[in-house]
Amino acid sequence: METQAATLPRVFSFGFWKILCKGTGQVMFQDNAWTGLFFLAGIFYGSYVTGNPAVAWGALAGVFMSTITGYLLRYPAEKGTAGLWGFNGVLVGCALPTFLGNVPLMWLAIVIFSSMTTWVMVGLNHLLAPYKVSSFTFPFVLTTWFVLMAARIMHGLPDSGLGAPELPGNFSSAFDTGFKDLVIYWLTGIGQVFLIKSWVTGLLFLIGLAISNYWAAIWAAIGSALALAVAILYQCNGGDIASGLFSFSPVLTAIALGMTFYQVNWRTAIWTLLGIFATVFIQAGMDTFFSPLGIPTLTGPFCVATWLFLWPHLNLDKKILQQG
Amino acid sequence: METQAATLPRVFSFGFWKILCKGTGQVMFQDNAWTGLFFLAGIFYGSYVTGNPAVAWGALAGVFMSTITGYLLRYPAEKGTAGLWGFNGVLVGCALPTFLGNVPLMWLAIVIFSSMTTWVMVGLNHLLAPYKVSSFTFPFVLTTWFVLMAARIMHGLPDSGLGAPELPGNFSSAFDTGFKDLVIYWLTGIGQVFLIKSWVTGLLFLIGLAISNYWAAIWAAIGSALALAVAILYQCNGGDIASGLFSFSPVLTAIALGMTFYQVNWRTAIWTLLGIFATVFIQAGMDTFFSPLGIPTLTGPFCVATWLFLWPHLNLDKKILQQG
Amino acid sequence: METQAATLPRVFSFGFWKILCKGTGQVMFQDNAWTGLFFLAGIFYGSYVTGNPAVAWGALAGVFMSTITGYLLRYPAEKGTAGLWGFNGVLVGCALPTFLGNVPLMWLAIVIFSSMTTWVMVGLNHLLAPYKVSSFTFPFVLTTWFVLMAARIMHGLPDSGLGAPELPGNFSSAFDTGFKDLVIYWLTGIGQVFLIKSWVTGLLFLIGLAISNYWAAIWAAIGSALALAVAILYQCNGGDIASGLFSFSPVLTAIALGMTFYQVNWRTAIWTLLGIFATVFIQAGMDTFFSPLGIPTLTGPFCVATWLFLWPHLNLDKKILQQG
Repeated sequence: METQAATLPRVFSFGFWKILCKGTGQVMFQDNAWTGLFFLAGIFYGSYVTGNPAVAWGALAGVFMSTITGYLLRYPAEKGTAGLWGFNGVLVGCALPTFLGNVPLMWLAIVIFSSMTTWVMVGLNHLLAPYKVSSFTFPFVLTTWFVLMAARIMHGLPDSGLGAPELPGNFSSAFDTGFKDLVIYWLTGIGQVFLIKSWVTGLLFLIGLAISNYWAAIWAAIGSALALAVAILYQCNGGDIASGLFSFSPVLTAIALGMTFYQVNWRTAIWTLLGIFATVFIQAGMDTFFSPLGIPTLTGPFCVATWLFLWPHLNLDKKILQQG
Repeated sequence: METQAATLPRVFSFGFWKILCKGTGQVMFQDNAWTGLFFLAGIFYGSYVTGNPAVAWGALAGVFMSTITGYLLRYPAEKGTAGLWGFNGVLVGCALPTFLGNVPLMWLAIVIFSSMTTWVMVGLNHLLAPYKVSSFTFPFVLTTWFVLMAARIMHGLPDSGLGAPELPGNFSSAFDTGFKDLVIYWLTGIGQVFLIKSWVTGLLFLIGLAISNYWAAIWAAIGSALALAVAILYQCNGGDIASGLFSFSPVLTAIALGMTFYQVNWRTAIWTLLGIFATVFIQAGMDTFFSPLGIPTLTGPFCVATWLFLWPHLNLDKKILQQG
Repeated sequence: METQAATLPRVFSFGFWKILCKGTGQVMFQDNAWTGLFFLAGIFYGSYVTGNPAVAWGALAGVFMSTITGYLLRYPAEKGTAGLWGFNGVLVGCALPTFLGNVPLMWLAIVIFSSMTTWVMVGLNHLLAPYKVSSFTFPFVLTTWFVLMAARIMHGLPDSGLGAPELPGNFSSAFDTGFKDLVIYWLTGIGQVFLIKSWVTGLLFLIGLAISNYWAAIWAAIGSALALAVAILYQCNGGDIASGLFSFSPVLTAIALGMTFYQVNWRTAIWTLLGIFATVFIQAGMDTFFSPLGIPTLTGPFCVATWLFLWPHLNLDKKILQQG
């Protein structure tokens, strides 16, 4: 391993920033710097429009720290150039400013825990290797869960963006159901992959996906739409539906199953539709599970659902692992 | 794998219905169609007597869907004919009508999630294979937990059969302790393996077990009785004791350890008694864990306890895995 | 395995008591009977001073039962003589009298569940073997979590030492911050490894560590001090800070990473400092997680943190596994 180990690139070189863009693109399984650039554009647009620019700068800090960590720990260079050290870190950088107050101690947490995702990913991938799946975004999910739960008893991390802890129960399924509203929810669900509540961001993400691979964009669009339909059919929490919170994990499940880990064909398409359906239930179930803690599920439902649909090793023209 | 893959049997053939009965029998590790038939008789009797016939029809739908799914996914045929695709599905079909309202969307959930247990089982068994244990009823437990937790924020799935979420704490340990009462609790605990609160059902289950294997019936009887004694000794929740809710997981632990995975002898008998004792604590512990969510443990305590008593690989004349 | 299996030693032989001391020392990774003797001295002093002598006698009962169990189950003898059957049991024996009332049924639970840690350890180590880590104190954590959660619905186990279940939220970060206070918190944090709130106990533990290995004592001291600093910096719950509850898991992480599983050098030192920092967050996060149940985290945060810092298999001059 030592011989192919990565040497730290010049931090301000063009190649390094390209790697950071790829790292952002890998959140949706795309090894493509242009895709990542569109994702970053969507993040910057959305975070400024929704009045929380710290999310955008956190994203940059997160992808930077987690990628640099890969070099510092001398992991194999080809993982770095494919952006695989960045996708968990960029999500940590989006999540902490979304849920916590913008204070220096929060930035220290971003620096430490986005870095930590890199070795947690290597560790979890090591665990999952015998089962021929990778850890997906679970290193981000796990470390961020710990930080957000910790914030509940750390006055130094204001939990201003977290919902109140409460026993699961009463909620309203009311929301606007005009056609225009539904289109906005559908695109917002795609934007929520990076925790951005903005339909324009979702549109920029779709364009970024299409640049890399048409099928990725198509499955992202189907994933968000079907999840929206299932959430409406089963009369889920209306506010969450309108915020796209039932769609972002299914979007990732759809891209993972529909075109990343299986060949595109009609058999895998049926499988992917089932996966999207199940992800909505897992999302709702995990929402309930974390309700007494007031902690978001992050992309946990996507990880769980995709593992459950990959572990059986079906004869569905499985492709080689791309992520991890 | 493709060559021995199962071809879909004629659905209304006698052989197919025999497989469904075996699938029901495999809930208690019995590869015996007559046993399964007695189990189904117990389920039908109990669900009609307790006024919720949807449980019986759900059981049939669940075992049907999960078995058919094994054929559709072309898993190895010998698993199908032994009934190993059915035991998780039949439990999903019992559980959802027990805890949720009888509405069409609930039946759609039975269809999807009982099917899903088949590939979740294959996936989990794949994970557990290096440790020489199988997933037991955990595919049922996992998928049903997600659906029941989801129902807390899905108005489309009325959570009418679930207890209210509450912080763990106050409860009454009062219950009737006449000899006749105790006998009823003891038999009811066996009936609760399929979530049926009926001592007649428990008796039918014992008969079904005895048809297949005397030791299975004996250990089921011991498991329910010892668990009842431990629950009374430690003064557990009285209502749950009377409903047999501290006994059904120990019944399964007893059959698993006492005669399925170990040879029957005095050393494995001591081991099994310890396992039954531990299962009562794990049951009570998991009851507390899920209390803030108001979600039942299902057969989770049996799975956890049996794993903890099988993983150490003792020199207790271990038999070959039968289930999974 | 049978050929090297352990034969039951004479229970009152000197060698057997030496093994019990080693088992106590292994809680902090020291295969040294004198270290264990100092630990036991600290436990006895602290438990009598804080008015709960049952903790000390529970510790003895626990290390005795779990060690004897290793012989009864005929596990390989070299594990027994290194004290590896004792360290989980001694902690069960400290924990149950700390959190539960001193009644005969509590002692029955100590006997059963401290014994159980021995085979749960063998089982979990079997699971973790492919990943070249061991289960650390997790067998103690897992079995004790089940017993304490069970106590919530067992009147036979008074939960008098457990905090009230409550949704996470309000707390005070106030505590005394004089230099003398801080020194007391620092030493108390080391004493809390065995659940003893006494700075003298912490001092006895440090001396015991130094007898075995200077680096073990140094890292324990650094672990407690840095954890205290991080907890103060992030303004954690003041009462828990003063009771040393943010320090005991980092103490174990520090000994594990700083000198047990990696060679002592400056690179592993940086790694260990990061591990201590992360352990405080994982401690706070798990505190929140268990808040609705009113259950303590025990040494769970140490296990999670140390796994996350060992799984990546860094080229940091890793040493051979000593524990497990």
